[in-house]
Amino acid sequence: MDESGPSGRPEQDDASSHRAVRIQDVAKLADVSTATVSRALATPERVSPEARARVFEAIAKTGYVPNPAARSLRSQKTHMVLVVLPDLSNTFFSKILRGIEERLFEAGYGMIISDLDGTPEKEAHFAAFIAAGRVDGAILLNGHLFGQTRMGGGATDRTGIPLVALCEAIPSADIPQIEIDNRGAASRMTQHLASLGHRSIAYVSGPESNILERERFLGYQDGLKAAGLPFDPGLVLPGDYTIEAGVAAGQNLAARSTRPSAVFCTSDEMAIGLIRTLLSAGLRVPGDISVAGFDDIEFAAVAEPALTTIHQPRRELGQAAASVLIDLLQGRPSPKRIRLDTDLVLRDSVAPPQNMLKAPAKTTRTRAMKPT
Amino acid sequence: MDESGPSGRPEQDDASSHRAVRIQDVAKLADVSTATVSRALATPERVSPEARARVFEAIAKTGYVPNPAARSLRSQKTHMVLVVLPDLSNTFFSKILRGIEERLFEAGYGMIISDLDGTPEKEAHFAAFIAAGRVDGAILLNGHLFGQTRMGGGATDRTGIPLVALCEAIPSADIPQIEIDNRGAASRMTQHLASLGHRSIAYVSGPESNILERERFLGYQDGLKAAGLPFDPGLVLPGDYTIEAGVAAGQNLAARSTRPSAVFCTSDEMAIGLIRTLLSAGLRVPGDISVAGFDDIEFAAVAEPALTTIHQPRRELGQAAASVLIDLLQGRPSPKRIRLDTDLVLRDSVAPPQNMLKAPAKTTRTRAMKPT
Repeated sequence: MDESGPSGRPEQDDASSHRAVRIQDVAKLADVSTATVSRALATPERVSPEARARVFEAIAKTGYVPNPAARSLRSQKTHMVLVVLPDLSNTFFSKILRGIEERLFEAGYGMIISDLDGTPEKEAHFAAFIAAGRVDGAILLNGHLFGQTRMGGGATDRTGIPLVALCEAIPSADIPQIEIDNRGAASRMTQHLASLGHRSIAYVSGPESNILERERFLGYQDGLKAAGLPFDPGLVLPGDYTIEAGVAAGQNLAARSTRPSAVFCTSDEMAIGLIRTLLSAGLRVPGDISVAGFDDIEFAAVAEPALTTIHQPRRELGQAAASVLIDLLQGRPSPKRIRLDTDLVLRDSVAPPQNMLKAPAKTTRTRAMKPT
Repeated sequence: MDESGPSGRPEQDDASSHRAVRIQDVAKLADVSTATVSRALATPERVSPEARARVFEAIAKTGYVPNPAARSLRSQKTHMVLVVLPDLSNTFFSKILRGIEERLFEAGYGMIISDLDGTPEKEAHFAAFIAAGRVDGAILLNGHLFGQTRMGGGATDRTGIPLVALCEAIPSADIPQIEIDNRGAASRMTQHLASLGHRSIAYVSGPESNILERERFLGYQDGLKAAGLPFDPGLVLPGDYTIEAGVAAGQNLAARSTRPSAVFCTSDEMAIGLIRTLLSAGLRVPGDISVAGFDDIEFAAVAEPALTTIHQPRRELGQAAASVLIDLLQGRPSPKRIRLDTDLVLRDSVAPPQNMLKAPAKTTRTRAMKPT
């Protein structure tokens, strides 16, 4: 295996102090016995939820790596891979998971799913799970390493197993990143809206701490600039990729006396919720307001009106991440970064502004960008 | 533990002959060495896909239980649960998986997901995975036991671990079943359509072999009968719960010279695809045709028109299945059958037929049925 490969993370000077953390330190911080710490890791259901939470928080704070004996057993491969998601109930992930699972299965690996909603308890649990040698590698879709925040703060990764970041890149981590060009795609969509004659283009964002959001927001600003349009903070509406956020943004826009002629939503869920709310308020889409999405989930093509959006190759993203991880697990060299192409999918929810008397765009697909 | 409980499957006379199957029998049938059989189970990636397929097929045919040593190790609990899905890419399952995962996590169990698309190779792989003691229990959402068909044919379950059937009941299996009253809910929706004045109510089905489909189809017929309407096979359109199947059914209906005034689709995906196709063909929904769905996925409320459907408590179904399995794993008694309530959700896609001059129904929710 290439030692300078993506799984070879640099040793950090401050990491050695973390390694010296003992079970006693955890017990003291959590105000429990060392036996309780052991039990919380081995048979968590036999520890009260309160004590368990304290133990896991203490593990997360101290950076304790439990069960060194189990770590040494790691040479006994488990043929299991952990897939970490930020939100298992989000439709966006279903096709990605299928892509991961089918590629892992072909190579003889099973898939363990963790729905990490950001609670330190849960995160520490899975870090301990990895430390106990229960999986050979992990695919991270949640935008950060174990123990870290999305902005890269917190402890250094000490899992010691190959990791791959999928969709949400983790720039601070020296691990392979599989993604699309979020910034380029957002710029492209913004420029497309501008090219139809829109001069006032609103933006419905993802969660602020999310790297997808940061990239897409830069792309929106790039697109405005390329089209010679000014950036107007009043046209940026908060969101979190859910239908509910789209509904809220739609209510916000419907209540305004002057409205933008186009809205770029950074997820299809938000676009669908927003369109529904605008229609309910008596506005026409695209007649009064054009609405564009991002992702091209299954429902985009059958939305009413059919959604103009950016197609992400979700199954292929999942397959690519699994392939890279399998390469790492089996000691083959693997690429450090893979960017898959997206497509601009032109359907019916976007048209020139009402005061421009052109025909609406027909449904076509154009290649949005080249691989990097 | 109650020995007559749901996990106590009756011994079958013909099962003892299966237990005597040896690795040599598998090797002979697969035309490989016994070493290859062992390797296909332990390190499948080191066996050619062709040989692996033959080995797994032979395992499935003979009912061979690999690795008896690993079986005896099963007293060493793994705290892992296998969740078997028929189609991981289906939106319907995302909230169910979240419900399962959160309940399992609370109890200290991890979740391994298998996307079993019906290939014998994959199914045999997971049967071997269970036999090797890699999981403590399993939740089956695919409507059949390992090695069996959906209709109950094939080998007896020999996994030896607690199993729970979720959503798709497995009537032939003596394991706990967590489900909704599919037949009652379908009857209720059919009667609702009839109560608005519809006399010609089409039905878009699920896959023929699926027990959900068999129950819902009986419910549709029950509902017609209760409303005094004749059953017309010409109004039954084939489907498989996907958007694409709804589009196909919509094309079928749009091309007819005489059309039903209402269509009951047995999934929201199909209803959304069907509505989109009818609208594209210049028909009005519900003006020309009322359309009802089943499931109440997130997109039902924001579809245009908003979808009248049957609400399934998906997260609660997942939680209930996980709770029952945890009871079994921890030796507590558990119910043999849990039926969760559904709701009839009345939105905008259903109205009285055009020739009846009533106002369309308002969005309300009514309790559809009582628990059994």
